[in-house]
Amino acid sequence: GARKMEDYAVFLALLAATLLVGFVSVILSLVWVFHYREGLSWDGGLGEFNWHPVLIITGFVFIQGIAIIVYRLPWTWKCSKLLMKFIHAGLNTTALILAIVSMVAVFDYHNAKKIPNMYSLHSWIGLAALIFYSLQLFLGFAVFLLPFAPVQLRAVLMPVHVYLGLTIFATVIATALMGITEKLLFSLKNPAYSTFPPEGTFVNCLGVLLVVFGSLILWMASRPHWKRPLEENTKDLRPIGGTPEGTEVESTMANSSNADKSDLRISTEAARKQNLKFDEAGQRSTM
Amino acid sequence: GARKMEDYAVFLALLAATLLVGFVSVILSLVWVFHYREGLSWDGGLGEFNWHPVLIITGFVFIQGIAIIVYRLPWTWKCSKLLMKFIHAGLNTTALILAIVSMVAVFDYHNAKKIPNMYSLHSWIGLAALIFYSLQLFLGFAVFLLPFAPVQLRAVLMPVHVYLGLTIFATVIATALMGITEKLLFSLKNPAYSTFPPEGTFVNCLGVLLVVFGSLILWMASRPHWKRPLEENTKDLRPIGGTPEGTEVESTMANSSNADKSDLRISTEAARKQNLKFDEAGQRSTM
Repeated sequence: GARKMEDYAVFLALLAATLLVGFVSVILSLVWVFHYREGLSWDGGLGEFNWHPVLIITGFVFIQGIAIIVYRLPWTWKCSKLLMKFIHAGLNTTALILAIVSMVAVFDYHNAKKIPNMYSLHSWIGLAALIFYSLQLFLGFAVFLLPFAPVQLRAVLMPVHVYLGLTIFATVIATALMGITEKLLFSLKNPAYSTFPPEGTFVNCLGVLLVVFGSLILWMASRPHWKRPLEENTKDLRPIGGTPEGTEVESTMANSSNADKSDLRISTEAARKQNLKFDEAGQRSTM
Repeated sequence: GARKMEDYAVFLALLAATLLVGFVSVILSLVWVFHYREGLSWDGGLGEFNWHPVLIITGFVFIQGIAIIVYRLPWTWKCSKLLMKFIHAGLNTTALILAIVSMVAVFDYHNAKKIPNMYSLHSWIGLAALIFYSLQLFLGFAVFLLPFAPVQLRAVLMPVHVYLGLTIFATVIATALMGITEKLLFSLKNPAYSTFPPEGTFVNCLGVLLVVFGSLILWMASRPHWKRPLEENTKDLRPIGGTPEGTEVESTMANSSNADKSDLRISTEAARKQNLKFDEAGQRSTM
């Protein structure tokens, strides 16, 4: 239908904008360290520190952002759910590795220069985000990728997984903005940051792009009608005599993944639907 | 039922934790400026600057956060929707006024001390957040509080309103973290921030509390089963012959406010439900 095509065009336009903003952010981080700063090296000097912003923006912002919306890409809906889970987990693992290397770079640089570690709010929130991200990845692997977790556990944990993922992502961007603020105040002394030197304005624009990128990812991730539809085999498991309303309930519930809403349902009728919903949640998080 | 009571207890516990964390943040901002800094005054000196963090944390973080979750309080569900809209709008207006006064304080301080304005990433993102917040408040007033907007426009704009509100709130907290970073680097010189002076550790803890407060608000705001139920008069408008499934559809849709999902529905049956849903969305955003 025309509306469906129009909606698809909106999705593609937003995806293109998101990829462009993310890609330009990575390029600007490279221009920053190569044009305005000391480039990249691994010798305990500023060139080693510079890996920190480049790898954070590439891995912890851009790749994590893409990992968040990878289930939303309509042309992947014919791929198996298991494949998509591997891609989601693989992108997040890549982001984690780049984030860890970027931390090693900054600790190594600090230690070489006898600069204290972990005194700033940036370092506190950043380390907390890295720890939560690792836990989220481990839990996601154990509960949603490995085949052992019961369907009801998956249904209960999926909203937590989604919430934690988006909150960690937002926190990572907030931490990157603090890092940019620190770095510009440390390195722009003569002329000072407050005198509007080109590097200050340039890196401020990079910071704005990170906020725009994060906002686009959050919009795409939180539109219920852009979620991956249920698997066909789930629909085949539907009880005999399901009404059109029943089908509607399924797609609405699946699309809003509000499995936790269950706590407010108590009647027998609700309990029957409850089980159906858990089945679906299980299906959604298996292959 | 027992599960419903348990869910209510979880809600109350989280609400208490959120209020505590928000309240302690405001207190810590006051301890910061009175115990570690120059207190509060309005004379172009640092005492005037100090209004900036205090009013931002009180208004733009704490009061905005409460405004976001005010519809979630179960004991307000018997109040009219119109009253709750006035409270939501009133709290947000209060937050906006405090944010504007806090900006005036910092501009006034900068001008008195001949410090340039608007050079930092903190100032860029903060001013953008304030402008978007004003637009959001104006649009919310025009579309959802005044009785002129057609029901379909309200249904289309509600998901945008919710998304923008949460994204602006997260951006405000990110901006506060940048502001804390700037202020500690400017003012902690001897002993330096990097030597772990008590003020640095104290204000880092304040920053961590702001992240915790924001995370709690986002969790409470995004649980579908904690949303305000539909008005009784809406349920009375339900077409004759509505099935239990129909009722389920209504509450599910209302609880996930995915009115924008409509773009993917094309059949006549879907169109009928569509109109029903718009009616509900209209009801949800009128009295």
